[in-house]
This record gives sequence, structure tokens and C-alpha cells, in this order.
Amino acid sequence: MIVGKVVGSLWATRKDNKLNGLTFLMVKPYSHDDARVQHEYIVAADNAGAGVGDNVLVTTGSAARTSLANADIPVDAVIVGIIDSIEVTDE
Amino acid sequence: MIVGKVVGSLWATRKDNKLNGLTFLMVKPYSHDDARVQHEYIVAADNAGAGVGDNVLVTTGSAARTSLANADIPVDAVIVGIIDSIEVTDE
Amino acid sequence: MIVGKVVGSLWATRKDNKLNGLTFLMVKPYSHDDARVQHEYIVAADNAGAGVGDNVLVTTGSAARTSLANADIPVDAVIVGIIDSIEVTDE
Amino acid sequence: MIVGKVVGSLWATRKDNKLNGLTFLMVKPYSHDDARVQHEYIVAADNAGAGVGDNVLVTTGSAARTSLANADIPVDAVIVGIIDSIEVTDE
Amino acid sequence: MIVGKVVGSLWATRKDNKLNGLTFLMVKPYSHDDARVQHEYIVAADNAGAGVGDNVLVTTGSAARTSLANADIPVDAVIVGIIDSIEVTDE
Repeated sequence: MIVGKVVGSLWATRKDNKLNGLTFLMVKPYSHDDARVQHEYIVAADNAGAGVGDNVLVTTGSAARTSLANADIPVDAVIVGIIDSIEVTDE
Repeated sequence: MIVGKVVGSLWATRKDNKLNGLTFLMVKPYSHDDARVQHEYIVAADNAGAGVGDNVLVTTGSAARTSLANADIPVDAVIVGIIDSIEVTDE
Repeated sequence: MIVGKVVGSLWATRKDNKLNGLTFLMVKPYSHDDARVQHEYIVAADNAGAGVGDNVLVTTGSAARTSLANADIPVDAVIVGIIDSIEVTDE
Repeated sequence: MIVGKVVGSLWATRKDNKLNGLTFLMVKPYSHDDARVQHEYIVAADNAGAGVGDNVLVTTGSAARTSLANADIPVDAVIVGIIDSIEVTDE
Repeated sequence: MIVGKVVGSLWATRKDNKLNGLTFLMVKPYSHDDARVQHEYIVAADNAGAGVGDNVLVTTGSAARTSLANADIPVDAVIVGIIDSIEVTDE
């Protein structure tokens, strides 16, 4: 899974009906290497009640759909948790 | 999911019959880092009525097929929404 | 999906029996950024009658298997179309 | 699969209930190229009893869920083994 | 699929029982661009009787499991063929 920070939201009125009711958040993946912080945003459906500024855990691929009520929803990334803390003790 | 801009179209007469009737659009993924804007195009089947110049939301992988009527279509990227706006409030 | 050019072929006598009868082509993905043209080759099973020099549309991941007669074939990339033209009108 | 080193842990109280009971570890993928060691962390659920400092084998994608008791768990990376040794004899 | 060279082996005593009996080989993906040869190793389960020095064809993702006897094995990369030759005739 990916760790990132919620930095914004995305709105789309015209979309696949199966996406109705989902909140789409912009997530900026973390890197432990400052030189490569410039990553693309990921757009993830929220399933953890996350908001801007939250550090979140994002599940991608087919696993993302297992977090939603319906396995037929065309979503490939879902926020599955809000991170309390990360402890890195060995580099 | 990926955010990108529709920049063109692709035509293929000789193709898997399962692809008949689909529109294939060239999508250029957005990056928030100008130094890395030079990404490959993604070819995505359109399921949102998108056109050139639209900013779109693209779902990839097995999830893409859940947006189409038939789960047996060999497509790994589908445009599932046309973006109204993105609001990034926290970098 | 990925757009690329067929640049060669691959032969493997000792292989998973499920791969028998498939043609494996070397595909070089296109990039619209010359500085990054140096990509790895993709090996894709051909399902469109492609040959060296053809520009092709390649479907990857689990979707690739939906293009073949048998969903149990261990192939993660299939050429699903031969490209007639690509029109990019908005950069 | 990916080879990496466990460098820490991640805690998330608010999360998808399906994730309850799993331990999430921070894994730093190995590279044999020092110039590219600066990779992102992967967050992987532990299914091998791994701890900080262990070199581990991580399975990603849909395969990750086959290692867990329930295929509906939204996890895309699982530690499936603790590495005793790697012998590279041909570069 | 990916083309690479087998450069070594990996041993893990403590692992998911479903992995018992598999041989894990270290595969170094080929690049046709010397400047980017420095790729990470892939760890792949062997299903073609490969050994160190062999050039192999590796299938990744969910397709990898279709090469094994049991679709529930947590493996995301399998060596499905030993390459006799690659002929690249058009760059």
C-alpha cells in the first residue's frame, strides 16, 4: 500500500454512475527521498473519512474494490485508513 | 486513478472484435511537477463522453473493465469521468 | 493501454505448455518525450496479426487474458490492435 | 516479488474494519544500484512474523490477498517470507 | 511480459506455506538502454526449469498464478519460458 497526504479534492459531475456517492481525494504519495518528492498525485476514493491534511493509507489495484460495498465500482485506489503514526527505526 | 488531459484520438481498424464500438482517446497524465511533465500517453477507452481538451479521470487495471458493459473486453484503462474542478489546498 | 512499435520477435522452446501456439513480439513503447524514448521492451503475445514495423495497441494486466481464448494463459500483455493513425491535436 | 528490508511500522486506528488484526510494516525495497536506492517505502501487511531489520519477500497485487485468510481484505502488498539468503552469482 | 537474465537464487525458510516447493530466482530485467540497465531485481518463481545465466520470459501480475497448479499461491511473477533467441530487426 501507499502512504500519502490528502492535499485536495476532485469534482466530476459527468461520470460513470457507479461512482456516484464516492468522494475523490487528491493524495500526494510520500517519499523518504527529498530529491524525488515530486510525484504525481493519486486520485483515491475515500473509505476512511479522510480530509485535507490527513496522512492516509491507500490500497491500489483490484484490492481497492474489496474495500467498497460493490466489487463492480471502477475505482483503482481507495483510502483505507488514516495514519496515526509511522515509526521508522532502521534505515 | 489518474488525472489527465485528452489530447487526441487513436484509430485501429484491425483489432480484437471485442474492442468494436469503443472510442480510444490519447490521455496525457498531469503532473504537479513541471520537471516531470513528459510522461507517456495513456490510451484509454472513453466511457464518459470525453473530447479533446477535457480533463478526465482514468481508472486503470482490472477496475477499468467494471466500467464497461462486458467484463471480457481487453481494455486496461477507461475514462470514467470528466473533471469539473480540482482543488488542492495543502501542499 | 500502451502504444508501441513492433521491433522484433522472441523464441522460447522450453516454456509453459499453455503458451504453445502464441507468437511473442518485442514492442517498444512510444514516448512523446524524446529524452525518455529509451524504454524497456515489452514482450506481448500477438492477437492482431501484427508484424515488425507495425504500430500497435497493447493491453496489459488481467485484461490481456480476456483477449485470448483461454483465461488461464500466463500472459500479461497482448497486442489487441494495429494502429492506423493517432491524431494529437492538443498539447 | 519484491525484496526489501523492514524499517518500521505504521499505525492507523481509523481504518477499514477488514484491516483489523493485521500488522502493517514499512518496507524499503532493495536496489542493486546504489544510485537508485532512494525508493519509496512500501507498506505491507505481515504474514510471516517479520520484524524491523528483517529482509523480506513481498508479494504485490491481487496475489497478496491469496496469502491472507480472506480474499476480501483490501491489501495490495503482503510479506510472505523472511529471507535467509540471496546468492547472486552472475551479473 | 518481461525479459531478463537469471542472476541468482533466494532462500526463505520462514514463509507462507503455500510457497513450499517453489524455487525463487533473482531476475535482472534487460533494458535496451545501457544508461538504464541499473534496474531492481525481480524475484520470480520458476516454472520453466531455469538456472543462473538463462535468459527468461517472466509473466507478472495475476497472470503469473495461471502458470502454477494452484491459483491461490501468493506469487506475482513466474518464469514461464527460457528464451532461445530474440531478434530485433527494427529500431
